[in-house]
Amino acid sequence: MAKIVINKSHLFHNLQQIEKKINDKNKIAVVLKDNAYGHGLVEIAQLCHEYGIKNAVVRTFKEAESVVTFFDNILILADTPPHTYSHTFHIAVNSLEALQHIPKNSKIQLKVDSGMHRNGLSPNELEEAFLGASKKNITITGIFTHYRSADELGSAYFWQKENFKHIKAEVKRLCEKLFLPIPLFHSANSSAVFRDNFYAEDMVRVGIALYGYLDTDPIFNNPHLKPVLSLYANKISTRTVSKNQRIGYGGTATIPKQMQISTYDIGYGDGFLRLNERKKYHTPDGFEVLGRVSMDNLSLNTTQEEVCLFNDVTQLAHIHDTITYEILTSLKPTIKRIII
Amino acid sequence: MAKIVINKSHLFHNLQQIEKKINDKNKIAVVLKDNAYGHGLVEIAQLCHEYGIKNAVVRTFKEAESVVTFFDNILILADTPPHTYSHTFHIAVNSLEALQHIPKNSKIQLKVDSGMHRNGLSPNELEEAFLGASKKNITITGIFTHYRSADELGSAYFWQKENFKHIKAEVKRLCEKLFLPIPLFHSANSSAVFRDNFYAEDMVRVGIALYGYLDTDPIFNNPHLKPVLSLYANKISTRTVSKNQRIGYGGTATIPKQMQISTYDIGYGDGFLRLNERKKYHTPDGFEVLGRVSMDNLSLNTTQEEVCLFNDVTQLAHIHDTITYEILTSLKPTIKRIII
Repeated sequence: MAKIVINKSHLFHNLQQIEKKINDKNKIAVVLKDNAYGHGLVEIAQLCHEYGIKNAVVRTFKEAESVVTFFDNILILADTPPHTYSHTFHIAVNSLEALQHIPKNSKIQLKVDSGMHRNGLSPNELEEAFLGASKKNITITGIFTHYRSADELGSAYFWQKENFKHIKAEVKRLCEKLFLPIPLFHSANSSAVFRDNFYAEDMVRVGIALYGYLDTDPIFNNPHLKPVLSLYANKISTRTVSKNQRIGYGGTATIPKQMQISTYDIGYGDGFLRLNERKKYHTPDGFEVLGRVSMDNLSLNTTQEEVCLFNDVTQLAHIHDTITYEILTSLKPTIKRIII
Repeated sequence: MAKIVINKSHLFHNLQQIEKKINDKNKIAVVLKDNAYGHGLVEIAQLCHEYGIKNAVVRTFKEAESVVTFFDNILILADTPPHTYSHTFHIAVNSLEALQHIPKNSKIQLKVDSGMHRNGLSPNELEEAFLGASKKNITITGIFTHYRSADELGSAYFWQKENFKHIKAEVKRLCEKLFLPIPLFHSANSSAVFRDNFYAEDMVRVGIALYGYLDTDPIFNNPHLKPVLSLYANKISTRTVSKNQRIGYGGTATIPKQMQISTYDIGYGDGFLRLNERKKYHTPDGFEVLGRVSMDNLSLNTTQEEVCLFNDVTQLAHIHDTITYEILTSLKPTIKRIII
């Protein structure tokens, strides 16, 4: 049976790198949304808890509920009003309209748009948001933003940071005026954490770096991170194929000489994105994926019972014209997870 | 909240087309593996049962167990020995070695390699398989194969069919010799069903055609099928953006004039494969996906509360250099399914 192996020491190594940079373990919030980027929500939550992490970021209330025992604070990015309530939950609010649907007495964090122009309130909507929250006895526990280009060289990162500085000043002014405590401020994602220093902010949100990747411009002084997830497939059957035989759908792979090949129990139905005759890939042990990956199977030039399909998805991300995040997040929750 | 809409009348229309071609409803086996190609295993199983389908094909025992009440026969393609037993289950066997792990008194179907050279016994291993099964009182209920190129013009389909004819003859010879009943024979997948006629075989396995697609060479006289699945996203927030503002990760989308844009709650984390600046897509209503799709979000030039992202994945398959199957199967089971 195929399996995903989660390397605990790699995860802890990455957390150490983040902690070293931030200088305060309590400021780290681990991003566990989308099944912990495909790694397994509960598995990663449990390990982060063991390391001593107190804060997490998830997408849905369902995710939050399943890891509620592991953290002191969980920021929930999706706006849907909650069915349950927990003191641990902080609901992200992206618009004045969304604020209207938040139940009384909840804890929220306002997302403010500093230049990515997707989610978040406009800075000029802050006063209305604070007044609206006050009326419903909603506590604003945090103000945050997201960088669109922290991983790329260019000015965007700097003016977004500058915008967030103004947002923070405005929030402080409002809190003084309304006699409210100052909320937490946070803006840094993985790339920003390692590009800059955020000692002055109250939290950093680390997703991809936690999992061992940083798709950042190589000009930045990147830390050495270790990929946490490896994918293993098991053999279904082996056969001897003759020279010039063609295998798989469309017969796109022609065998150069008589050899033994085997079929393995991973396909794009498992979230291992489909390779075809235009997308060539070799496993870490040098085995070639022969022909097209099908829904449940792929063929390799080996007879090994178990094969590591990847222990680093950088190359696959490149082959699929995408980012490491997608290769990882695509993996289906149905694949067995094992922690080593 | 995002949702997947399953169109029952489209599914029934496709089943009618298949039935019309096969002339016998009882010969149809619906392929429900991989969460019914992303459509929702139980939802599709229930609807097929309602239509009167008696046979299904799944990948795992877990899938088989969750739809066992809907069918008389379920062929399970994965080889892993079962934890449970049901008279409804038929286990696919791909190799002599796999046969050794099959529990006594089981019902199996032998997959035979007729030219795809991936899974299945070699034709010359049939006698050994029949003798081995006999010894453990295993009943061979079926003999099947799979076409590598039924969807493409070319000779491969014909010589594979010829090979399967020889395999059938050999199986009949063995059954006479061993005083065994003749098993069911089946070879046709969706493309083969509509390309040819299989009145002489006992079953056809329809997957992609059931869901409304046929990635077949247009030279074949293809039926009119109707896509069953549509994907809808819900608005998170709307904003007014000025001319030349850039939005999303990397700021890759530049807005040509002042307009209102909105963010929606679908991303590649939901299995909607990532679009970037090299992969342009418009929704069926003509809205443009602006910039990069992120894990949980995408942006469109509309303010509609709910948007249909697709009701036919042909174009997306083309954009992603893949097949309709992958676009559908990638959709995560966590998205809510609604039958209309």
